Amino acid sequence: MAQRIGKYTLLINNHVTVHSSVGIAGKKEGEGPLGSEFDMTFQDDKLGQSSWEKAESTFQATAVDMLLKRNAVSPAEIDFIFAGDLLNQCISSTFGLRDFDIPFLGQYGACSTMAQTMLVAALFVDSGIADKTIAVTSSHFCSAERQFRLPIEYGGQRTPTAQWTVTGAGAALIDRDGSSVQINHVTAGKIRDLKIKDANNMGAAMAPAAADTIYNFLSDTGTCPSDYDMILTGDLGLVGSELLKELLMKENIDISAQHQDCGLMIFDRKKQDVHAGGSGCGCSGSVFCSHIMKRLQSGDLHNILFAATGALMSPTSSQQGESIPSISHLIHLSRA
Amino acid sequence: MAQRIGKYTLLINNHVTVHSSVGIAGKKEGEGPLGSEFDMTFQDDKLGQSSWEKAESTFQATAVDMLLKRNAVSPAEIDFIFAGDLLNQCISSTFGLRDFDIPFLGQYGACSTMAQTMLVAALFVDSGIADKTIAVTSSHFCSAERQFRLPIEYGGQRTPTAQWTVTGAGAALIDRDGSSVQINHVTAGKIRDLKIKDANNMGAAMAPAAADTIYNFLSDTGTCPSDYDMILTGDLGLVGSELLKELLMKENIDISAQHQDCGLMIFDRKKQDVHAGGSGCGCSGSVFCSHIMKRLQSGDLHNILFAATGALMSPTSSQQGESIPSISHLIHLSRA
Repeated sequence: MAQRIGKYTLLINNHVTVHSSVGIAGKKEGEGPLGSEFDMTFQDDKLGQSSWEKAESTFQATAVDMLLKRNAVSPAEIDFIFAGDLLNQCISSTFGLRDFDIPFLGQYGACSTMAQTMLVAALFVDSGIADKTIAVTSSHFCSAERQFRLPIEYGGQRTPTAQWTVTGAGAALIDRDGSSVQINHVTAGKIRDLKIKDANNMGAAMAPAAADTIYNFLSDTGTCPSDYDMILTGDLGLVGSELLKELLMKENIDISAQHQDCGLMIFDRKKQDVHAGGSGCGCSGSVFCSHIMKRLQSGDLHNILFAATGALMSPTSSQQGESIPSISHLIHLSRA
Repeated sequence: MAQRIGKYTLLINNHVTVHSSVGIAGKKEGEGPLGSEFDMTFQDDKLGQSSWEKAESTFQATAVDMLLKRNAVSPAEIDFIFAGDLLNQCISSTFGLRDFDIPFLGQYGACSTMAQTMLVAALFVDSGIADKTIAVTSSHFCSAERQFRLPIEYGGQRTPTAQWTVTGAGAALIDRDGSSVQINHVTAGKIRDLKIKDANNMGAAMAPAAADTIYNFLSDTGTCPSDYDMILTGDLGLVGSELLKELLMKENIDISAQHQDCGLMIFDRKKQDVHAGGSGCGCSGSVFCSHIMKRLQSGDLHNILFAATGALMSPTSSQQGESIPSISHLIHLSRA
């Protein structure tokens, strides 16, 4: 049974592990610094489908299918699948996963979804509600651009603070005693809103949420940044990462030696024209489930915090002059 | 700790209760058969806000605020709030709840959200992950119409199978030993898709999901419809309710004596011009959290199943020729 540590953190007691994971990505991501780390990359980001949305659904379906086959697990053995994405009404998840016949609990945390789905999955497994669960998410540059910004055919200019939505998906099999990669603690986030309104500067809008959740975790556990090999955020990008470090420095917490951001790792900003870095649910989803998990499995990383962030706005709220509320959920993982 | 009964159902062991609940609604709902049952009804469905979306957020905020005040509970005492809605990126929940400073786990189950949020909340409380939680959802006729169908100013004709999105919200405080209304079992749904494509016939699209989950619950628990005072669906409306009964009759399960549907209860179909009945997350949310809870509290109802359903499509998926996948989550409640 999970045990509360401090106000916001739950200690996971029962050897909950990320048994296995699959991170897959599109062509541009395959050409980036982590290209060789993904379990699969696609040359055609449409995956042979008739729309970008169907392609994104196929990304989720493919990641889950690979995860099940690699571990010789049948869908009937999975007690719950936790999934979410950025598309209106989360259709990437619902259409991608409708044929698996697994009890489905849709999660909405915007780009924090990989951490949110893993957090809920870990709590279900720790508590004995479930034995085997899957956490999955995705994003797609083309479906996101046309939904949130402009039709890609329009070729709109991007501001320097803008980020590039990752085309990809991540899926993780979470159970007990399945591997050496343990989930030790989880901290759910609260919605933060520092009244930033620029929908082309998501990193800045999300940084306060990451700062709040990381601060809460460190306070609750009485630990400090140097206790961890890495403090990994999801998709703050260049602007948001700097702001996160500044916000935590105000609390006398210096994470500069440990901090990494999936949005800065997935692309080569000098060569790939992605401005402030990668973003989208599929950014931390694909990077965590491939590169980071491989480093944990190999022993290259021993003890990390994974705090993905999500911007909880919509084009409608931005058009109505609203600011951008954000959230961050945190998972503490270690190698047993 | 929740205990698995059969394949899909979890027995709730630790006296998890719906401590208290608040159901609020708009003007049209206030003029319907349940008008006097709601905790509050508004004459101005805009609630003084500058947009329908902001009005819907205010519905959620108002329901949660009333719930906290009525029970003299502060936001800091709530361990988790589970919320979701139909608006793109769930902005009704995220904007409505951003000022409460409560750990937030966004749920997406379309119109099944009241049951889904209660299901997850019940499991968290039963397992000791949380002591006090809130489950909340909302919908608004005007924000839903313009997002899913046509601008209301256009005055489009509605088909006979169309349903009327309820303007309202429901919020429930779920904890241990808080009242006489217990949650005994929960059954999470799987996505069903019988390839119905008519976005003006959601009831028919959702009926197979309700049939599947009710069937699974009855099989898992070895019970039959006559064991319950009421088998309540969320918003199947007239067409979906008939189809649900037909589908279950094929399995030799006759629920005709026990079945009720919130979408058929909330409006007077003869006088209120709502075609096949009410719909939306706020339909089962407001009806369950007011009328049904009052009947459970008074002892008028003793033992009921609440199975809300959600249609997991978007306007984009329908425009791309896709069918409508659906889901239903079930809660078994009884009076202690």
